[in-house]
Amino acid sequence: MTLKNDRFLRALLKESVDVTPVWMMRQAGRYLPEYRVTRKQAGDFLTLCQTPQLACEVTLQPLHRYPFDAAILFSDILTIPDALGQGLYFSEGEGPKFRKVIRSALDVEMLPDISIADELTYVTDAIALIRKELNGSVPLIGFSGSPWTLATYMIEGGGSKDFRIAKQFMYDHPQAMHLLLEKLANAVTDYLNAQIKAGAQAVQIFDTWGGVLTTGAYATFSLKYMQDIVANLIRENEGRQVPVIIFTKNGGLWLEAIANSGCQAVGLDWTIEIGAARQRIGGRVALQGNMDPTILYANPSAIRKEVGRILESFGPGNGHVFNLGHGITPEVNPDHVSAFVDAVHELSASYHP
Amino acid sequence: MTLKNDRFLRALLKESVDVTPVWMMRQAGRYLPEYRVTRKQAGDFLTLCQTPQLACEVTLQPLHRYPFDAAILFSDILTIPDALGQGLYFSEGEGPKFRKVIRSALDVEMLPDISIADELTYVTDAIALIRKELNGSVPLIGFSGSPWTLATYMIEGGGSKDFRIAKQFMYDHPQAMHLLLEKLANAVTDYLNAQIKAGAQAVQIFDTWGGVLTTGAYATFSLKYMQDIVANLIRENEGRQVPVIIFTKNGGLWLEAIANSGCQAVGLDWTIEIGAARQRIGGRVALQGNMDPTILYANPSAIRKEVGRILESFGPGNGHVFNLGHGITPEVNPDHVSAFVDAVHELSASYHP
Repeated sequence: MTLKNDRFLRALLKESVDVTPVWMMRQAGRYLPEYRVTRKQAGDFLTLCQTPQLACEVTLQPLHRYPFDAAILFSDILTIPDALGQGLYFSEGEGPKFRKVIRSALDVEMLPDISIADELTYVTDAIALIRKELNGSVPLIGFSGSPWTLATYMIEGGGSKDFRIAKQFMYDHPQAMHLLLEKLANAVTDYLNAQIKAGAQAVQIFDTWGGVLTTGAYATFSLKYMQDIVANLIRENEGRQVPVIIFTKNGGLWLEAIANSGCQAVGLDWTIEIGAARQRIGGRVALQGNMDPTILYANPSAIRKEVGRILESFGPGNGHVFNLGHGITPEVNPDHVSAFVDAVHELSASYHP
Repeated sequence: MTLKNDRFLRALLKESVDVTPVWMMRQAGRYLPEYRVTRKQAGDFLTLCQTPQLACEVTLQPLHRYPFDAAILFSDILTIPDALGQGLYFSEGEGPKFRKVIRSALDVEMLPDISIADELTYVTDAIALIRKELNGSVPLIGFSGSPWTLATYMIEGGGSKDFRIAKQFMYDHPQAMHLLLEKLANAVTDYLNAQIKAGAQAVQIFDTWGGVLTTGAYATFSLKYMQDIVANLIRENEGRQVPVIIFTKNGGLWLEAIANSGCQAVGLDWTIEIGAARQRIGGRVALQGNMDPTILYANPSAIRKEVGRILESFGPGNGHVFNLGHGITPEVNPDHVSAFVDAVHELSASYHP
């Protein structure tokens, strides 16, 4: 099936587009009243993720409101550790938690040797359903957490402020940490390839916590395993290339290394000037980003001004997917998202003559 | 009085030293059992800050245990907003809070026009007392929060995860934000000059939250006001230069701009490779940092290895003050701090032939 709107895929491959494509990390989420209704119907967050019909429904909700140029699968990055038997649950107001934690080399060795793709059929079923419902309107993005990011949750037993336990494990037991990351890289590779086979037309690796590492530890314990994944992904499906986006939050110091990973695009948080990032790596990869999500709390004219500033910073030419520098937060006024998306499409036309 | 150990001041001015000097952000703090005793005696945290005798006592505690090359005044960065009438208090487990918040241009205009130095005599009294007790053993560091960092607390009413309210204020009311930052820059200048007159031999500006801004907003709303402060500080006292250190957490992308601010040294968090930072700005300023504080949870041999790695990355020559990339956390084993400090002194000697 031919895509009606393929700006997003074209921009990721640095091909020409009429306007800059735009989507938002966490675009299917709590800032939308209709999401909160479905979430309530589902009962709990995991049921929402694990019921293809509901995951499909919330994936499409933002597309009904806004002219986004891509849909992204609604799911959670912690489905992989859950499938590995860690016992994911969500406690109100405290975020994700695991019943089991990894604290020793033995814990790592005991992780079951299972096929992630076979375990997470609820994800691939959701993808097939979403593709059917999208009916070729815009492409669908699949995703996974990075091995390092998943490892932090599995070791800490949930979120963390300073990743003390995960880092202590890394410094005290580097070999066990590498074994864990290798297992996770294999799982992520299987998972993303299953998503691609099910219909994901691009994939993003969320390295949410790579930026808490030193430069050396980032290269060794995070980027290395993302490179291994990228090297083993299905690169073409349905007659089109399947682009890979790597997003390391707070990774601005390491852009050159990330751009050399084999990915097609690098996701940027808002702390780096996108024009400076383009100078550094724009010759090799496309860039995705990078508006500060909190700007969506400002008034629509301030939002429009910031969109214009980022477009000007990137400048004319191809290879830019507009996005936030991190996920949209629950308290944003949905009308402000309209202002954001419209500003991107309207103000970017002159950069694509 | 001649300093018995002036390595710290010499290194900040890129003068030769026998070994690399070392101190730790939050070295007087909760990881020390003797601190917890004094803290309990004081009753609450603010009383501890506001009682010169007690502030002096906890300032000196780490010096009795470890051969640190500098003492740092025990205080809190939020003393300035408190002196401006915002009503600082600490709620158990929730961090600092303010009874009053800044939410409008009028709130900014209504801030009292007072002399911070006259309000915060408990700080200058503590400094005088600490200097007397130090008796020339090591230099004493004074400090303040940066205007942007103080403004975030005053607007949010406490700490924040995403600084939504502060950023919304900045984007919606930039003029009022600039007026607030100007008032705070004047207050910080007065405060640091009073600390210098009272005996602080170097000063550090903690820009803890500058790194949450975009590149442009950082230059306009944070660095600009730190530059204004540096330009108006007393540069010499007791016949010696008073060096200024600027520490912006997550400021690694902006090192050149920070180094051009007029400061003598730039504090680095752990995400940047100190050798790369030296290549970028080591010709102009000294560098302070940059071990990941969580490495102190690892075993002593891993700590020593990491100290060695950072010393090797900086390489031979002058202009390095060893420190953590952020404050030490309460749960660290005090014995690990010994391993850290000793490793810096022992392993650095060969870099200062």
